[in-house]
Amino acid sequence: MKTHSAPYITTVCLGLAAFLASPLVLAEPLASWNDSDSKKAIIEFVENVTDPDSDDFVPEEQRIAVFDNDGTLWTEQPMYFQLAYALDRAATAEESRLDTEIKKAAAKGDIGPAMAAGMEGLAEVIAISHADISVDDFQADVRDWLASAKHPDTGMAYTDMVFQPMLELLDYLREEDFDTYIVSGGGIHFMRAFATETYGIAPQNLVGSRVNVELVDQDGTLTLMKRAGIDYVDDGPGKPVAIDEKIGVRPIMAVGNSDGDVPMLTWTTEGDGPRLGVLVHHTDGEREVAYDRDSHFGKLDKGLDEATDRGWVLVDMANDWSAVYPEAP
Amino acid sequence: MKTHSAPYITTVCLGLAAFLASPLVLAEPLASWNDSDSKKAIIEFVENVTDPDSDDFVPEEQRIAVFDNDGTLWTEQPMYFQLAYALDRAATAEESRLDTEIKKAAAKGDIGPAMAAGMEGLAEVIAISHADISVDDFQADVRDWLASAKHPDTGMAYTDMVFQPMLELLDYLREEDFDTYIVSGGGIHFMRAFATETYGIAPQNLVGSRVNVELVDQDGTLTLMKRAGIDYVDDGPGKPVAIDEKIGVRPIMAVGNSDGDVPMLTWTTEGDGPRLGVLVHHTDGEREVAYDRDSHFGKLDKGLDEATDRGWVLVDMANDWSAVYPEAP
Repeated sequence: MKTHSAPYITTVCLGLAAFLASPLVLAEPLASWNDSDSKKAIIEFVENVTDPDSDDFVPEEQRIAVFDNDGTLWTEQPMYFQLAYALDRAATAEESRLDTEIKKAAAKGDIGPAMAAGMEGLAEVIAISHADISVDDFQADVRDWLASAKHPDTGMAYTDMVFQPMLELLDYLREEDFDTYIVSGGGIHFMRAFATETYGIAPQNLVGSRVNVELVDQDGTLTLMKRAGIDYVDDGPGKPVAIDEKIGVRPIMAVGNSDGDVPMLTWTTEGDGPRLGVLVHHTDGEREVAYDRDSHFGKLDKGLDEATDRGWVLVDMANDWSAVYPEAP
Repeated sequence: MKTHSAPYITTVCLGLAAFLASPLVLAEPLASWNDSDSKKAIIEFVENVTDPDSDDFVPEEQRIAVFDNDGTLWTEQPMYFQLAYALDRAATAEESRLDTEIKKAAAKGDIGPAMAAGMEGLAEVIAISHADISVDDFQADVRDWLASAKHPDTGMAYTDMVFQPMLELLDYLREEDFDTYIVSGGGIHFMRAFATETYGIAPQNLVGSRVNVELVDQDGTLTLMKRAGIDYVDDGPGKPVAIDEKIGVRPIMAVGNSDGDVPMLTWTTEGDGPRLGVLVHHTDGEREVAYDRDSHFGKLDKGLDEATDRGWVLVDMANDWSAVYPEAP
């Protein structure tokens, strides 16, 4: 009887195991994407950087892909979903928490005065529900809200209004050994309440804005409390700064949908070697909402011009996607 | 000829592959740790949380272990190595950067005035070398320094003054599917220059202090520039806040050596279920440096008392470790 060395057996067996597992890998990626230039460009990029024989091969530890959330992975109209949460909670807040005219208006469902006051106005509305509450209690409350709240136009649960083609893109990238991150202007604790279950992205891979957080001794136990005041806005130039701080590797792929994502896409695609920038253009007024240069939320103006100049993939939702939301189970 | 189903072959082959790989797993963990209570407590904890049949079993995604760096993974005397870098660079800085008395003294090697002024004084010294430089250039400069600088007492390269028993602990935890993080008072960019190579910890798993960072358009290219001013001090209560923000999961194990680590150990071990706190006590004046309650750097006073009250493992370097630094290759 001929005997084989241990490494030989290992190699054969691992090869056999890989072959048996291969149908998973061979399933068509991006099934809800029409055969458009966008889909082709994305697949070409991924095949290129994962091919060990390609000059553009990128080792796994550098296959970092960053995604904006609002308007990129789920809908952001008629307002950011986190703001809908803040307004819902303002409506039932104790009187003592409504100590400014902006907060009083928000409690009545009027976001106008807050919007007129810009970031500081929004911070006031946010503070009603996002301050003086522990991180654990806040995340539990957001989960409660997401379990019951319905979108005003579609009547759908907010977490059902994620984009099916983007779920497929996240899956595809992870199958190809990319590390996927969300880098969102949304709050880090708001995202922690749903993003892992909804997108398959671990808590560690979420980067977001944040209010001040304080460690306090509460009845003899250390507790993390959210406080009034914005500590960091993870938008615009804040996105590359946060990526550097938290990830420490310049991504090779960045996906966004608004001018707030332009610095992230610019910085990502200016790096050496193969890089891909993707902007989702909300062109589908029938299945979602059509908007760009004049929108209150997710304004895409500078980005539309830059996309052409810089060779970014501009996803035309109406024409590039065969489905927008996941089919109901 | 009898045929087998694909799942059967996969199972047999994966089992065989695991058996062939098993000597790696079966090698004695923590080889440079003497058979002390410390070693026993660590191994018992790890075996407990990784045993699927144990009531204390913890799934992989929650097996988060956080380590302080200075004094925990490498030596921190006679001063933090990052401060030695800052002083070395101050000594050769352009005159125009030495615009305060504290900076001028530091450039002559006198850290006294800075220490007397506390955190603001140290921030001035740090700013000489850590500001008005791009993140990329800074990290390259730290790598240059680490490649040539020698410790004043031992004459060793700084990156050779890591603790062999802690390298083994990091390896052991990773073999048991823990995710290992550094949560350091040291600067995030300083650590990025060496920690991945030295400790096997990815850039994403480093949490640290930071100066202000700004995204600027430099000759038409977006560049991350380090600026004067401390943005965040990742020490004391700042450690749990940073862990929550960056990791988003309360660790089940925390390892430190000074009072600056006490909030991290307290918050970690106050969580539900099995938890382990470890404090390294610098008791070895022969092989390293003996210090605790009265030290300028890495003062361990409150922590010594808390360790007993809270059941943390107090590592006695002199008696628990058979080696301190790695053997020269």
